[in-house]
Amino acid sequence: MSYELSEKFASLKPSAVREILKVTSEPGMIAFAGGSPDTAAFPCNAVKRLSAEILEENPVSALVYGVSEGYEPLRQTVAKWLKERENVGSDDDAVIITAGGTQVMDITTRVLCSEGDTVICENPSFIGSLNCFRSHGCKLAGVPIDEDGMNISALKTAVAENPNAKFIYTIPNFQNPGGTTLSLEKRRAIYEIARENNLVILEDNPYGNLRVAGEDVPAIKSMDEDGIVVYAGSFSKILAPGIRVAYAVVPKKIAPAFTIGKQVSDVHTGVLNQMIVSRWFDEYDVNAHIESIRKIYRRKLNLMCDCLDEYCPEISYVRPEGGLFIWAKLPDKADMLSYVNELIKQKVAVVPGSAFMVDDTAPCSYIRLNFSTPSDENIIKGVKIMGNVLKNFI
Amino acid sequence: MSYELSEKFASLKPSAVREILKVTSEPGMIAFAGGSPDTAAFPCNAVKRLSAEILEENPVSALVYGVSEGYEPLRQTVAKWLKERENVGSDDDAVIITAGGTQVMDITTRVLCSEGDTVICENPSFIGSLNCFRSHGCKLAGVPIDEDGMNISALKTAVAENPNAKFIYTIPNFQNPGGTTLSLEKRRAIYEIARENNLVILEDNPYGNLRVAGEDVPAIKSMDEDGIVVYAGSFSKILAPGIRVAYAVVPKKIAPAFTIGKQVSDVHTGVLNQMIVSRWFDEYDVNAHIESIRKIYRRKLNLMCDCLDEYCPEISYVRPEGGLFIWAKLPDKADMLSYVNELIKQKVAVVPGSAFMVDDTAPCSYIRLNFSTPSDENIIKGVKIMGNVLKNFI
Repeated sequence: MSYELSEKFASLKPSAVREILKVTSEPGMIAFAGGSPDTAAFPCNAVKRLSAEILEENPVSALVYGVSEGYEPLRQTVAKWLKERENVGSDDDAVIITAGGTQVMDITTRVLCSEGDTVICENPSFIGSLNCFRSHGCKLAGVPIDEDGMNISALKTAVAENPNAKFIYTIPNFQNPGGTTLSLEKRRAIYEIARENNLVILEDNPYGNLRVAGEDVPAIKSMDEDGIVVYAGSFSKILAPGIRVAYAVVPKKIAPAFTIGKQVSDVHTGVLNQMIVSRWFDEYDVNAHIESIRKIYRRKLNLMCDCLDEYCPEISYVRPEGGLFIWAKLPDKADMLSYVNELIKQKVAVVPGSAFMVDDTAPCSYIRLNFSTPSDENIIKGVKIMGNVLKNFI
Repeated sequence: MSYELSEKFASLKPSAVREILKVTSEPGMIAFAGGSPDTAAFPCNAVKRLSAEILEENPVSALVYGVSEGYEPLRQTVAKWLKERENVGSDDDAVIITAGGTQVMDITTRVLCSEGDTVICENPSFIGSLNCFRSHGCKLAGVPIDEDGMNISALKTAVAENPNAKFIYTIPNFQNPGGTTLSLEKRRAIYEIARENNLVILEDNPYGNLRVAGEDVPAIKSMDEDGIVVYAGSFSKILAPGIRVAYAVVPKKIAPAFTIGKQVSDVHTGVLNQMIVSRWFDEYDVNAHIESIRKIYRRKLNLMCDCLDEYCPEISYVRPEGGLFIWAKLPDKADMLSYVNELIKQKVAVVPGSAFMVDDTAPCSYIRLNFSTPSDENIIKGVKIMGNVLKNFI
C-alpha cells in the first residue's frame, strides 16, 4: 500500500509541548513545561454540585444533541458577561461556543483560508495555534515581538509582503510564550492596519483574566466597528481545561460559515459541559472566583521570578503581568537544546523556545517556563536545579 | 471591508438536517427529521451515578488537560470490546478517542486530502459527512446504492474516473439515509478495490449496534490485513449523543498524523465525558444495555413501517434491519419539496432526500424518516398526516 498523507500533514510534527507533557507525567518530574492552570484553582465543588443538579433535574436535556452554535443560555450569559467585563461584542456579533479555544483558531482558519494562504502571527507564538494554521496548509509570516507586543513596523512589512494573508493572529495579553502584553497604542495600530488591508484579526485571549499586576488594556475586539475581529476566549484557565468549553465572538457576516465549520468539525460541544458552565454563572460569582484565583497566580508568578533572580541570575526575562508563562533567555554561550535535555535528565521539564518559532530550526536561546502547574515547593526546587545545571553550560 | 470566505466555505450550506432540527423543536412539531436516538434509551441513572462518583473521588483528574489520543483506560476498554464484539482492530491499529463520530471524518479528511482531491462516497449519504468532505475542498464522487449497498460496478467506474481520490467513504450498516446494509460479498469487493487502487476506506459505523433483524455482517475493518481501513464508531447511539464521545480505529501508520489532527482540532475530548464512558464499561454490562435498547428500536422501526404500509401505501421503501432511518420514495407524481413543506405546515418534519445527494439540486423523490426521536403515539399520528397530505400530491 502506498497511500500518502496530505501535503499539509506530511510535514507536521506533533506539538513539542504535548509530547513533553507526556514526559512530565513521569513520576518525580518537575513540570515547568505544561500550560495547565493550577489545579488548586479549579472550582471542583461547584462542578460536582452543578453536574449532580443537572443530571438530577433533567438528565435528558444534558444528553441529547445540541445545536452547533452552542447551548443558548450559555451563549447569552457569555455575551452579557463579556460586554460588561471587557466591552467585547455587539449586536453585530454572535457568540458561538466551541470545544476549547484551539477550535476557534481551527474553525477561523478553515473558514477564511485556502491552502497556500498566509497567516500573520507573532513570532514566537503558541505552538498549538501555529500547528493548527499549518495543518490547513497555511504559510506563516512571523512578526517579532517587543516588550509591548508585536513590532508594528515588522507587521507592516509582513502585510506588504504577503498579499495572500487572510488574518493577523495575536495573543494580546500575557502572550504565549512571550509573556508580553500588547499596548493600547499598538492594538489601535494593528486594527488600523487590518482594516486598511482587508484583513481579519484573530484575537486569542485565553489568559486575559489571569492578570496579576498592572492595568487591563481594552481588547482589540472592543474597537471593532468594522466587523473584522474574531475574538477567542476560554473557560480552560478560569474554570478548568478538561471541561473543553470556550467561545468565539464572531462578526455576523462570518458567523453562518463559522457555525458550519463547527457542524462539520464535531456537530456541537458537549451539552453537559456547557450546562455546567452556564449554571456556574447562574449560581456562583464568577468574577469573584477570578479575583480569588488571581491571588494564586500572583503568588506563583512572583515566586518563580524571585527564584530565577536568585538561582539563575544569568537567565534574563521580562516579568509578565499575568498569564501562565515566563519566556526566559539563556546566556549566549549556553546551547539551549542541550540544556533542556540535561534538565529533563535532572527531572525538570521545560519547553525549548524553538518550538514556538515560525522557523523552529533556527537557533534559539529561549525556554518557556510554566509556573501554574508545579507546586510552590517544586518551583523553588526546579529553579534551583535549573541554576545548578546552567553552571555546566556557561 | 471586503474580506472573503475561503473558496471551500463560500459554497457550503448549513446542514439541512441541523436547520430542520431547529424547526422540530417548535411546540407541537412531530419530529421525523432528527437523528437522535430515543431518549428513553439513555442510561441516565448510570451517567448520573458515574459522574457523581468521578467528581467525588478525583475531580481534578476529570478537569485537567488530557492527552490528544484519549483517556488511556477508555482507549484500552474500547480496543478490547471492539475486538471481542466485532473482531475490529489489531496490534497494527490505534484506538483514538474523538468528540463524536463526525470528528473522525473531519480528521481523516484533513490528514489524507488536499483541496481538490476526491472522496468516493455512497449517493445518497450522511449530509454531515458530505459537508465535512466539502469543507476541506474535496470533490465528491457519488456511487449509487442497491438494496445490498454500494453498486460495485459504479464504484469501479468512480475509482477509474478519479485518480485523485484518496478514500472511499461508506456507512456499511443501516446506511444513513438509505437504510441499506452492505453485503459481505460487497464488503470484500470494496476492500479489494481499495487495496488495488491505493485507497483508504473510511468505514463509518455509528448504527451497527442498533440491529433489530437479520444477522451481523463482519466489518470491513475486520478484513484489514493491509492497514487501509479507518473505522469510526460512536457512543452517541448506544449511550447518548450529547456526551460527544466516539472513537476511531486507525492503522498505526496513519495514527501519528491522526493524533496531530486531533491536537490541532480541539486538543483532546472532554475528560469527564471520557471517564463517564470508561466507567460505564467497568460498572455496567454494556452489551446487555445494547440488547435492551434494541428492543425499543425494533418496536419503533416496525411501528413506523407498519404505519407507512397502512396509511401511505403509495410510499415505497425497503424495511431496514436496524439503524434510525427509513428512506421513503414518494410516488413519481408527487413533488417532493412541496410535499415536505406542506408537511411542516401540518406539523410533521421530515428531511428532503435531496439533502443527502452529492448533487443536491437534482430531482429527488425521496424523504428520510426517523423513527427513534418521536413517541409511538406521534409515529402513528405523523404517518397518518403524511398519508392525508399525500392525497393532495397524487
